[in-house]
Amino acid sequence: MCGTAKSTNYAETVPSSPTSTLIELGQRAKAAGRVLARSSSDARNEALERAAELLDQRVDRVLEANATDVVRAEASGADATTLDRLRLDPARVSAMAGGLRQVAALPDPVGEVVDGWVRPNGLRVQRVRVPLGVVGIIYENRPNVTSDAAGLCLKSGNAVLLRGSSSSIASNQAIATTLREGWGKAGLPVDGVGLVEDTSRESAVAFMQLDGLIDCLIPRGGPSLLASVREHATVPFVLDGAGNCHVYVDRHADLAMAESIVVNAKVQRPGVCNSAETVLVHRDVADPFLPRLAAAMPEVTLLGDAAARAVLPDIGPAGDQEFATEFLGLTLAVAVVDDLDGAIDHIARFSSGHSEAIVTGDLATADRFTAEVDAAAVLVNASTRFIDGEELGLGAEIGISTQKLHARGPMGLRQLTSVKYVVSGNGQVRS
Amino acid sequence: MCGTAKSTNYAETVPSSPTSTLIELGQRAKAAGRVLARSSSDARNEALERAAELLDQRVDRVLEANATDVVRAEASGADATTLDRLRLDPARVSAMAGGLRQVAALPDPVGEVVDGWVRPNGLRVQRVRVPLGVVGIIYENRPNVTSDAAGLCLKSGNAVLLRGSSSSIASNQAIATTLREGWGKAGLPVDGVGLVEDTSRESAVAFMQLDGLIDCLIPRGGPSLLASVREHATVPFVLDGAGNCHVYVDRHADLAMAESIVVNAKVQRPGVCNSAETVLVHRDVADPFLPRLAAAMPEVTLLGDAAARAVLPDIGPAGDQEFATEFLGLTLAVAVVDDLDGAIDHIARFSSGHSEAIVTGDLATADRFTAEVDAAAVLVNASTRFIDGEELGLGAEIGISTQKLHARGPMGLRQLTSVKYVVSGNGQVRS
Repeated sequence: MCGTAKSTNYAETVPSSPTSTLIELGQRAKAAGRVLARSSSDARNEALERAAELLDQRVDRVLEANATDVVRAEASGADATTLDRLRLDPARVSAMAGGLRQVAALPDPVGEVVDGWVRPNGLRVQRVRVPLGVVGIIYENRPNVTSDAAGLCLKSGNAVLLRGSSSSIASNQAIATTLREGWGKAGLPVDGVGLVEDTSRESAVAFMQLDGLIDCLIPRGGPSLLASVREHATVPFVLDGAGNCHVYVDRHADLAMAESIVVNAKVQRPGVCNSAETVLVHRDVADPFLPRLAAAMPEVTLLGDAAARAVLPDIGPAGDQEFATEFLGLTLAVAVVDDLDGAIDHIARFSSGHSEAIVTGDLATADRFTAEVDAAAVLVNASTRFIDGEELGLGAEIGISTQKLHARGPMGLRQLTSVKYVVSGNGQVRS
Repeated sequence: MCGTAKSTNYAETVPSSPTSTLIELGQRAKAAGRVLARSSSDARNEALERAAELLDQRVDRVLEANATDVVRAEASGADATTLDRLRLDPARVSAMAGGLRQVAALPDPVGEVVDGWVRPNGLRVQRVRVPLGVVGIIYENRPNVTSDAAGLCLKSGNAVLLRGSSSSIASNQAIATTLREGWGKAGLPVDGVGLVEDTSRESAVAFMQLDGLIDCLIPRGGPSLLASVREHATVPFVLDGAGNCHVYVDRHADLAMAESIVVNAKVQRPGVCNSAETVLVHRDVADPFLPRLAAAMPEVTLLGDAAARAVLPDIGPAGDQEFATEFLGLTLAVAVVDDLDGAIDHIARFSSGHSEAIVTGDLATADRFTAEVDAAAVLVNASTRFIDGEELGLGAEIGISTQKLHARGPMGLRQLTSVKYVVSGNGQVRS
């Protein structure tokens, strides 16, 4: 799942061309990808198990590398959140190994026949899932992404090119080296994992321009990284975007359920993309609902429009700027709407297209909300926090797409594949 | 299906920002898209039928507009192929109307439940097909694209923004006006069809940068247009790319079948992307096969590598440059390969990833070819000319994608949709 916004300003980077070192890394990944594409599911699972064992055995080596990253980050004045994301401990390394084993246990998406049919002339047509080839991951300072992303890419038959941040380079090197050895022990090409060692900002832009070498780029990071990908990437990409998520409490809502859902969506883990940022309340239930909501989550700062402040006079004001903000913390904007149309319009205006929820007992209202709200996920009577690959049962996720092409919503193993038409005949020609 | 390469040099265009006129056009399309997304299948089919009737009724008006385009093109010295693509006649206008009716008769992809399941906590999860929103089409001088693309976009619940070439602007205006009226007669928003009137090169680039207004851009044109999209587009796009297609004649091939397939793949319609550009022949069958192939298609100019020229001494030479060329005409490159690996390697090196065929009677060889060749479509014992939306049974196509994300191979109505997660509960919150 996506994390909070980061501070690196990628938008300031100067475009540059890929260096020969970077191109060579890409070419080795490409060649490895061709081998992985025809590898057996057994071999790929074996590689994941071997890498997990090695991570467990080498926990001290990984922690030692990580300690150098942490010391450097502390010296440069990194804040507590950044340090927490960066820091590994035995439990976190063990969790990385466990993640690889979990991925090994998932069904293999490669070779799945998506659909198939026979044409009147006897041609048999199948669409078959195939790996993408080389998946590029550009990410910020969480070292566990190195292992998680590489595991999902291998399971789906892909090579992975990793470009992490300078702050976690020693940790990433230690982890990537271990994974490469794991792949090798299973007879698979070690270049199925490639790590970019040059973590300059120029190299980030060059990475996004490895045309013909990266088949799909997935950025994992804050708004500045995403903006840089939009601006500079020339390779195909899928954006794991921001979540400005809403919960609409309809006049037909069970208010106890609404309270529980809004509180969960806001406070259960406020720093992530599927947490709620704005609650929209139908005017008919604003009087009873808003005071009980405020009482139920005293730790949350509410900011309201005029109608909300008429009910809760002590809260601060919310306008377009607040409604457009992904707070990623214990702040919630509140707006009172006249009806369902008002809620749908507000969401159309401010939503980032991630996850949008309604609480209602009315069937027609629920149906219109799910049909008309344009987002990766719409929920009825459930917390936005469920829009996550594991919670939805995908097994694992590489990110949550807020775009409409290729993948939308939580991306699991299938979203790391493409399809190939396989057409079989016995001499058919076209007339 | 894709056409031949065109000559417009988009790569020379200077980037520019969208004008207020263009942005307004995009905003109107976006608003229309929201209405179309919740329109009924009946209303959309009605609009297609009404537009078809209007096209039939107004054939004279459309032909008159087209005549001004043709006169202008002739005056500017356009070649015969360009004029043929541009010129409409009563049969071609009637075919446009017929195309709209055919699309109306296809199944509606919108609302299709792709898959669905129930989580252990009772949450019901469905993935439902929804329209993309606004599809942008940038195309060259075929006026029928105006009608064909708009019909497919409407059927799939999308608004369409059309940006054709200056050479066909009068034809496009006449057709788009008719379509808009047809949409209106069915009670659907006329802005579901938008035509960019400014056909300057700057406007083409600005069109590719309508961020937030175009949900998917599909270019229909030659290599220069595709290069410009890769370079300038900031909106999501799907490339309808080039076809450097191969037929590999294995040593286990039935040579009569191989002859028939290669001839069909080369000469049945040489100017299109799914025609063959290179034949690869296993060394064991080069002696019997190449002379009969040459005799079977005397109109084709063969260009061979050294081994091919040892069998056919009169043909010209082929090297890397020829093997990389999409001739789109009556020229065919010939290479003799040592074995299946040689064929796969040649294809990996020169293929554009469109359609690749093998002729063989050996099962293991066919299986390895289909598994290891990386292309949108692989064929066994059939002509590459079948890789086309209608031939494969998709009903119609908006293009043939040679990229791996979102859509690969012929793109039908489903490829003009996205999916939305619809999650229903009864108060579930995350713990």
